[in-house]
Amino acid sequence: MAEPLFDRIALIGIGLIGSSLARVVRREGIARHVAISTRSAATLERAEELGLGDSYSTDPAVAARDADLVVVSVPVGASGEVAEAIAPALKAGAIVTDVGSTKGSVIAQMRPKLPANVHFIPGHPLAGTEKSGPDAGFAELFENRWCVFTPLPGTDPDALEKLSEFWRRCGSNVDTMDPDHHDMVLAIVSHLPHIIAYNIVGTADDLQTVTKSEVIKYSASGFRDFTRLAASDPTMWRDVCLHNKDAILEMLARFSEDLASLQRAIRWGDGEKLFDLFTRTRAIRRSIIEAGQEVDVPDFGRQVLAHPEKSAPPKG
Amino acid sequence: MAEPLFDRIALIGIGLIGSSLARVVRREGIARHVAISTRSAATLERAEELGLGDSYSTDPAVAARDADLVVVSVPVGASGEVAEAIAPALKAGAIVTDVGSTKGSVIAQMRPKLPANVHFIPGHPLAGTEKSGPDAGFAELFENRWCVFTPLPGTDPDALEKLSEFWRRCGSNVDTMDPDHHDMVLAIVSHLPHIIAYNIVGTADDLQTVTKSEVIKYSASGFRDFTRLAASDPTMWRDVCLHNKDAILEMLARFSEDLASLQRAIRWGDGEKLFDLFTRTRAIRRSIIEAGQEVDVPDFGRQVLAHPEKSAPPKG
Repeated sequence: MAEPLFDRIALIGIGLIGSSLARVVRREGIARHVAISTRSAATLERAEELGLGDSYSTDPAVAARDADLVVVSVPVGASGEVAEAIAPALKAGAIVTDVGSTKGSVIAQMRPKLPANVHFIPGHPLAGTEKSGPDAGFAELFENRWCVFTPLPGTDPDALEKLSEFWRRCGSNVDTMDPDHHDMVLAIVSHLPHIIAYNIVGTADDLQTVTKSEVIKYSASGFRDFTRLAASDPTMWRDVCLHNKDAILEMLARFSEDLASLQRAIRWGDGEKLFDLFTRTRAIRRSIIEAGQEVDVPDFGRQVLAHPEKSAPPKG
Repeated sequence: MAEPLFDRIALIGIGLIGSSLARVVRREGIARHVAISTRSAATLERAEELGLGDSYSTDPAVAARDADLVVVSVPVGASGEVAEAIAPALKAGAIVTDVGSTKGSVIAQMRPKLPANVHFIPGHPLAGTEKSGPDAGFAELFENRWCVFTPLPGTDPDALEKLSEFWRRCGSNVDTMDPDHHDMVLAIVSHLPHIIAYNIVGTADDLQTVTKSEVIKYSASGFRDFTRLAASDPTMWRDVCLHNKDAILEMLARFSEDLASLQRAIRWGDGEKLFDLFTRTRAIRRSIIEAGQEVDVPDFGRQVLAHPEKSAPPKG
């Protein structure tokens, strides 16, 4: 195993992302000491039961004191408050990063609160599941996923390289991007899909002509796919919606325009237009599989999971 | 193994559904002879290479002649044409069924063409993957899925029971429903999800501020889930849109209303409304898992599929 990269890492927030980091940091021996902080005493106790770290406190400043790396993994709406709390405790030269899904807002909230003698490097690991809390994390979460940094002008290259090395040891690929561009990219690849999934599940839940039990019973014909994203953490996603508003509204407007046009094609029986769209979209999944960002089995491999003793169905 | 249920089954259409039926009929010994027909000579040849049946013809009447059960598994827009082609060849007392995702339209197309001395029982197995063609089928496709019949008034109970037994031997649960209600239920649980998935993938594909390679590279943050449904067979889905227009337009209208309201909550920063919706939708996935209609592993088990040697991540 390689030498530890840091003496002390502080994990502020110990949900899906924080607890996955705790697990991979331990497995890979990335730090000599992992200090954990979370606001909820019950969650902190659970983290301690799971043995996720070396020290525990509900006070983020206690965890952050003397840390070489502080990773803030909280809903983006709480970033400013955390920055304010840890600021007095940070040692000179510490690296402070976050994992939030919106970067412009996190920078606006955290930068003014942090001292000038630390390296603040905003980051975002594009990884997750629909589960949340310290029990939901696992050490392999970041494997072959991307971690995107949105460094501010004048960022120290050595600090950025050290943080990159941290994420690589966690299993990620790393990338850098302008914060505004990050927020636009995430609006389409992540925020819009979640919002649409929440919306369609809400629409189905409201129906009266079709009962809820029918929606559940017959969900395997398509609907169930959307319920995964729509089972994601409500606090996290409320904050994403509130903190990446402009980019999300832009993507929603485009989506709705396109949907109106598709609706019109259905109303007027324009089969050619429907066929063209349905053909074009097919190629994109193939590219995602080729890029190693998706499993190459039909139906997300549900058949394989249901019958692990059998071989996978043919790839068709 | 139980006695064969039929002497001769004709499978008209040998795509994902037809070829899965061929495989399970053979595995379970449900028929003494399986006659296969499909319009494309190349597809028929492939079915023969795969050894899916006992006899093969591009003429559906040849396959249907003397059959005790005829299963029509073609895009719903082709149902009328198939009914017309097989009608003169059908023997008295034969059961004719289909697998189409729209029932009102299939009944309107097929019923007038079929002779009065056969049992026409429209059906719909709610099962599938995003793959198509004879290579994509597998014998387990129907296991624990629902097959819904929409019997016409005056349907012979013995014929309905025999067809039910056929689907049960294929692994399905069976259910009956009024055709109009079926089309409304399917519009929400299947057709709307597919249309929305096609639409969002199309929207992403059209963006210029975010490149296609970025969409692919970062797709694991949500987008990739939608690409599965959007990789489904374009001909099948064009026909579904054209043949269940009214119910689909109704569901699209509700979806769009709800989305406009959600968009407004985002624009005006109504965090409470967002949080309420995002909490309500979470419960539905749990119900689907409890109903045995979804695998109970985070992220569709992608982690398990990527690392079959490791245990599943905790359920969180």
